[in-house]
Amino acid sequence: MTDSGQAEGPLHVVAVGSALVDVLARTSDDQLDRLGLVKGAMALVDRSQSATIYGQMAPGTEVSGGSAANTVAGVAALGGAAGFICKVADDEFGDLFVHDLSATGVVLGRTPRAATQRPDGAEAATGHCLVFITPDGERTMATHLGVASTLGPDDVDPALVGRAQVVYLEGYLWDLEPAKAALRRAVELAHAADGLVALTVSDPFCVERHRREFLDLLESDVDVLFANEQEAVSLFGTSSFDKAVTAVEETGLLAALTRGAAGSVVVGPHGPQPVPAVPVEQVVDSTGAGDLFAAGFLYGLTHGMDPEACAALGGVCAAEVISHVGARPEADLRRLAEQAGLAR
Amino acid sequence: MTDSGQAEGPLHVVAVGSALVDVLARTSDDQLDRLGLVKGAMALVDRSQSATIYGQMAPGTEVSGGSAANTVAGVAALGGAAGFICKVADDEFGDLFVHDLSATGVVLGRTPRAATQRPDGAEAATGHCLVFITPDGERTMATHLGVASTLGPDDVDPALVGRAQVVYLEGYLWDLEPAKAALRRAVELAHAADGLVALTVSDPFCVERHRREFLDLLESDVDVLFANEQEAVSLFGTSSFDKAVTAVEETGLLAALTRGAAGSVVVGPHGPQPVPAVPVEQVVDSTGAGDLFAAGFLYGLTHGMDPEACAALGGVCAAEVISHVGARPEADLRRLAEQAGLAR
Repeated sequence: MTDSGQAEGPLHVVAVGSALVDVLARTSDDQLDRLGLVKGAMALVDRSQSATIYGQMAPGTEVSGGSAANTVAGVAALGGAAGFICKVADDEFGDLFVHDLSATGVVLGRTPRAATQRPDGAEAATGHCLVFITPDGERTMATHLGVASTLGPDDVDPALVGRAQVVYLEGYLWDLEPAKAALRRAVELAHAADGLVALTVSDPFCVERHRREFLDLLESDVDVLFANEQEAVSLFGTSSFDKAVTAVEETGLLAALTRGAAGSVVVGPHGPQPVPAVPVEQVVDSTGAGDLFAAGFLYGLTHGMDPEACAALGGVCAAEVISHVGARPEADLRRLAEQAGLAR
Repeated sequence: MTDSGQAEGPLHVVAVGSALVDVLARTSDDQLDRLGLVKGAMALVDRSQSATIYGQMAPGTEVSGGSAANTVAGVAALGGAAGFICKVADDEFGDLFVHDLSATGVVLGRTPRAATQRPDGAEAATGHCLVFITPDGERTMATHLGVASTLGPDDVDPALVGRAQVVYLEGYLWDLEPAKAALRRAVELAHAADGLVALTVSDPFCVERHRREFLDLLESDVDVLFANEQEAVSLFGTSSFDKAVTAVEETGLLAALTRGAAGSVVVGPHGPQPVPAVPVEQVVDSTGAGDLFAAGFLYGLTHGMDPEACAALGGVCAAEVISHVGARPEADLRRLAEQAGLAR
């Protein structure tokens, strides 16, 4: 029995993020170069750039994605109660995004459907992310946000945020002024309801663009930080990962810093603690690794687990999602958590 | 070097079929019962039935499908030159169907895009097929044809059909009057251009509905028949598979009768010949098994291979597609053919 999918009552995690459908295909390093994409990073592209890049892409597989959406899908798969605030258009990708998230038991915010007419008369579509998977399992992304770029403060449902133990913010949204205002609104509402605020800084380039504002946000408004090694180094402007860990420690935040196959470092009340990764036979597709790490961590955090156990559960979830194509869990995460002695 | 993707010049196979995007999810036998679906079969459903069934479905994976489309994608993956005649709407599923087939090198007919407005004012969408995969790897399908149901004789491009060595007809289309006329038009054009005509009868229930007409078609217009065991028994109204084989022999057709893990029986100039299946470790998803068998067979037929070798190549292609989720090949079919000593 899980406690997910509740129409009322408290929720463990409510996230604010981009609603995206992933289009995944295998590619070579050479093709990434030809397309002008930076391996391992996420590039924002407009409609016409996206169409051009898609035209060069191999036949794909479509799966619901979106960084924070993957995280709440993971929380629900573990048996947690989760909500999501986003914007989709009234089109096929919107239908399948809403279907897939609802089918996991995640409660969607009150205004998931946007008007699909843009000022220039063209239709704005549900966002999508072209994901190129290289033979080493690394993913490189070109995202066209579509209506996800119109998410604003009025879309943040106070009733939904007010039910959350943790409000989880997708750093990618910081690129857009209305979405930034939506994140600030979610922070206010979380504070008013005595909820915790968690932030993922999402991407090294995203950190480059918004370092100052992210640091201000961490100082005043955030309780839990998620970042990978490169993001942490970039955020604190340090010359090494160890120095970034020290900088994080000085903030007094609870933080989970991920290092891929090297596991993670949790910074919490017991100082920095390394937590090993869960070994996987083969990294098929690393899409969603960080998102599912956050899912396990947040599930643990909202179920009374200590930070090291939270990070261990994050590792279990990340290991599952990199073992197949697509950024949503396919195996029974709850059973995997039980097998690892990490279920609550 | 392959000879696929040519804008001009001869084509090995041109198919007429339904343009569908598959939505695949795992399910239990119990859920199939609750949804009123007959395991292993394809049910045609309308828009509202499809929405109701989709509402009960687990989170899915979307991949381009359509029976005959899977076949031409397989021919192209083997290095053959192929074309496809179908109808898609101007929507996201239409875009991805056209993208995926074009990316394999298949040439699309001149009018793939339909007007999306229905007489009642509602928008007609690109067709989709809800595919439920049970733990045994069997697939059960609920198809909403959408604009694929409007395919008619005017959509059959004479220039494209005229370039084909083999014109391949999807039996499913026989359920629709305009599509039936499209198939008849394709037969005329194939005959006029001295091409062969191949037919797959698609589904045991489809055979039940159209037995008389299929038999007439076989007598006068078809050169190559594809059917599985149940379809062959139903088509010829025999009490056993062996008797169906005898009945096929009497027609004088070249025929490939598939029997799942038991392989296939080829009926040709040397009488009925059994051809073993290619063993697979685990049947993950049987969607597309028959379609990819036909791909290998037709590639062999148009590259001078004898019928037994054609069926062996069909078995190689079918084994690949049942080893993963989705009905389009993921591994390099041409290399698999080479490894089996069946490349031309």
